Amino acid sequence: MMALGLLPGAPAHAFNLSGDGKGKHVLILGGGLAGMTAAYELNKLGYRTTILEARTRAGGRVFSVRKGSTNQEGDGPVQTANFDNGLYYNAGPSRIPHHHQLTMHYCKELGVPLEVYNNVNEGTYYFSEGKGPLSNKKVRAREIHNDMRGYMTELLAKALDQDKLDLALNKEDAAKVLEYLRAEGGLDIDKLYKASARRGYLEAPGAGEKSGKVGDPHKLADIIQSGLLDPDFYNVAEYTYELQMTMFQAVGGMDNIAKALEKKVAGSLKLGAEVKTVQNIPAGVKVIYKDKQGEHELTGDICICTLPLPVLSNIDHNFASDVSRAIDFVPYIQTGKIGLQFKRRFWEEDEQIYGGITHTNNELTQIFYPSYDYLSKKGILLGYYNFNEKAKMVGDMSMADREKLALEKGSLIHPQYKQEFETSFSVSWHKTKYNMGGWAVYNSDARKTLYPALLKPDQNVYFAGEHTTYLTAWMAGAFESARSVVASIHSRLAEQRVQYPVTSKG
Amino acid sequence: MMALGLLPGAPAHAFNLSGDGKGKHVLILGGGLAGMTAAYELNKLGYRTTILEARTRAGGRVFSVRKGSTNQEGDGPVQTANFDNGLYYNAGPSRIPHHHQLTMHYCKELGVPLEVYNNVNEGTYYFSEGKGPLSNKKVRAREIHNDMRGYMTELLAKALDQDKLDLALNKEDAAKVLEYLRAEGGLDIDKLYKASARRGYLEAPGAGEKSGKVGDPHKLADIIQSGLLDPDFYNVAEYTYELQMTMFQAVGGMDNIAKALEKKVAGSLKLGAEVKTVQNIPAGVKVIYKDKQGEHELTGDICICTLPLPVLSNIDHNFASDVSRAIDFVPYIQTGKIGLQFKRRFWEEDEQIYGGITHTNNELTQIFYPSYDYLSKKGILLGYYNFNEKAKMVGDMSMADREKLALEKGSLIHPQYKQEFETSFSVSWHKTKYNMGGWAVYNSDARKTLYPALLKPDQNVYFAGEHTTYLTAWMAGAFESARSVVASIHSRLAEQRVQYPVTSKG
Repeated sequence: MMALGLLPGAPAHAFNLSGDGKGKHVLILGGGLAGMTAAYELNKLGYRTTILEARTRAGGRVFSVRKGSTNQEGDGPVQTANFDNGLYYNAGPSRIPHHHQLTMHYCKELGVPLEVYNNVNEGTYYFSEGKGPLSNKKVRAREIHNDMRGYMTELLAKALDQDKLDLALNKEDAAKVLEYLRAEGGLDIDKLYKASARRGYLEAPGAGEKSGKVGDPHKLADIIQSGLLDPDFYNVAEYTYELQMTMFQAVGGMDNIAKALEKKVAGSLKLGAEVKTVQNIPAGVKVIYKDKQGEHELTGDICICTLPLPVLSNIDHNFASDVSRAIDFVPYIQTGKIGLQFKRRFWEEDEQIYGGITHTNNELTQIFYPSYDYLSKKGILLGYYNFNEKAKMVGDMSMADREKLALEKGSLIHPQYKQEFETSFSVSWHKTKYNMGGWAVYNSDARKTLYPALLKPDQNVYFAGEHTTYLTAWMAGAFESARSVVASIHSRLAEQRVQYPVTSKG
Repeated sequence: MMALGLLPGAPAHAFNLSGDGKGKHVLILGGGLAGMTAAYELNKLGYRTTILEARTRAGGRVFSVRKGSTNQEGDGPVQTANFDNGLYYNAGPSRIPHHHQLTMHYCKELGVPLEVYNNVNEGTYYFSEGKGPLSNKKVRAREIHNDMRGYMTELLAKALDQDKLDLALNKEDAAKVLEYLRAEGGLDIDKLYKASARRGYLEAPGAGEKSGKVGDPHKLADIIQSGLLDPDFYNVAEYTYELQMTMFQAVGGMDNIAKALEKKVAGSLKLGAEVKTVQNIPAGVKVIYKDKQGEHELTGDICICTLPLPVLSNIDHNFASDVSRAIDFVPYIQTGKIGLQFKRRFWEEDEQIYGGITHTNNELTQIFYPSYDYLSKKGILLGYYNFNEKAKMVGDMSMADREKLALEKGSLIHPQYKQEFETSFSVSWHKTKYNMGGWAVYNSDARKTLYPALLKPDQNVYFAGEHTTYLTAWMAGAFESARSVVASIHSRLAEQRVQYPVTSKG
């Protein structure tokens, strides 16, 4: 078996295309990570690029909300954040998996410092509102994790002991499985689960006679009846490949990645330029965009369209019917976040929670504790990060009502909320102008019927962005897709001049 | 049930004793964390303190090895570390559990910045040398974790499906356990484990057609026969309360905690002062110590002895027989570490390992990857951190042979070792002068028969240090024990002047 660690080509490197774009003009729609990365790489190769970005800031969904940050939902008022200087939260992507090598690579190439994002924390809570015997109790993740491991390994050990299962193992190996179960579950010598220090102490051990006092485990029936094993509540997120530690974040806000790219492509970038139509023409591509001065026409040899599909769906185009169908029907997730600034990091000071995620069964879904400025005075935590129906319901509220909900529900978990709250800023991505959704969500049917149309150029228009990858929702999708279209375009326009095989990295 | 998070007294606070020590003289033996903390708190209360520390540095086992650091084993030559400026490793304690509130508190009170210690990393390896079908393969932790979860939940789900187990649950609750097992194990719709992306990809997902390719799971028999479930190898360390995330370390080296304390007690500290005898006398305590100038006698009203027991065992004293027995017979662990400096952080660049621990079944036991300066050029990793027999065997080697062993065995895992290695520094704690052991290791018998003698004063001599706590091996033990003896001493010497009840925190 091949070790996963050293697959050929695994290390992410600079994008080593050669050949010369000789000033051919590439129009890029959307100044998010995909668009800016494409421009950055094309410029290196001698192309001329123009990026049209509707907003007055670049970065798209890579959006760190800080003092003065603005957002507009629908045609509503522009909201301005009023956080203290130095405090921020990432309304868009907030985590980088260590194995997203292209994201890691660009941070290095662009000089963006990274720090650990503490995604795993056994000290956070499972909070079941109004359900079962554990209703409205703050149950530490470590209690549920270790109680469940204990109960399940005890059951399995019992079944194995009683020869009720055919393990298809020899006697010696079966004995080792039993020993494993005992270690895994923290079972006693009789292979029974009777709680252990793994789930925390009622009284901490200390000096002298203080040996520490471990509490009783939660009853299995209590855990179940409180909904903590429900599919939409029980947290196996930490097991997900993308969410396994080690994770990173950009120091000072994820938008530092976008800002570093922006510097590199400043000469290509037109901010405040809203695309109105995009059309294939015999000589290339024609785009009409609107800015403060009015409408303008722009032509190029080639176009890379990175606009989110729900936005593109409302733009006039002459794409083929399969492309048009994909644009109109690929579903995007409804999702929202709220950042709550507090006078005091009570979650650290009072409750010893440093980073990580509390899970709830109510509208909040999750509370994220910040992975920066630990032990400092003030902090912003993510008061909710929700999806689908819950995100729709909350997104339909006014900003003030969202804040009210976050505070009310959050106070059930952290009563300190009321005393310590200062200011909030919420973003509902599916309502946000120029986004209209969180990220593309493909089921296997959509991958088969809609997705393929976006992978080939529609005449002179190429598509890029997370929605053209199997890395949807991740910044890595933007980076990978940008490289992929640049390689394709370069292969087409500079075909005769490519000196080495063009390989886009996987 | 009481939530664990908000127990009364849970937040660690400053040590609020009142009353005045009125210049009574407390002799403190040992300038490690316990001794310096005791002096720091006693000085605040108006006592006069003298700390006798045999080494020319304070901190004891809180020892970060950096350029110019020295260590002496037995009466052998003094070794000097030759690492690059700015690089270090913690030869002693290297991790702070987030719930060790007193350690967290003193870091805050002393102004020592902390950063996350990334103790959990699914991208590290399980490496079985010379055993079974996975012999000498680099198996990522995520592969074993998820394969074992998959196999075990599949077995249990099957047993439950076939009604072979009495769950003592109603039908509806039992169905929820089945759903839980499916989620927990990553089982398919038929509740079978057939690998999943959780264990990583053979080919990473990317843009366009790159949907990613998941490999086959390891066979259960292969995992077992390669020893990966052996009690001394399979890693459940992450489940241990003290090793659960979130963990911290002092920025720039754990010795910054000792250095911050040292500054506070500089006036009390005599370095290079080796205790030769300690004796109760009618008026208090008499100590003879030796420094460069010769032998000196010192008397005090009270003494706090924080010397490690194997060191104290070789010092002349007139303690009671039960105390003497505890000093001579409490076992200490044999343990050692080696720091290896490399030109290049190949574990990050080539193998995407950022922090965390690789586990082996050979002499290395563990390789720790550094949790600081991620993505920078050079780095020091812990080439081994071993215990007991393995630590004894390696500790008996010359420094050069330890380095050779670490490089040879480490190269099996990271062939880059040979190309990139620069310099090493090893510490064998049980051989190190003035330590003679890692930390106290009590079995339940030793807790009953030996431990109690150390918890009360022997006339005018009090004992402190991790060995007088249920937090052995942890810095928290030093802090808790220091507070505990200070409270006892203050209660005895300043009894009439205590205005508020003396409470030591738990």
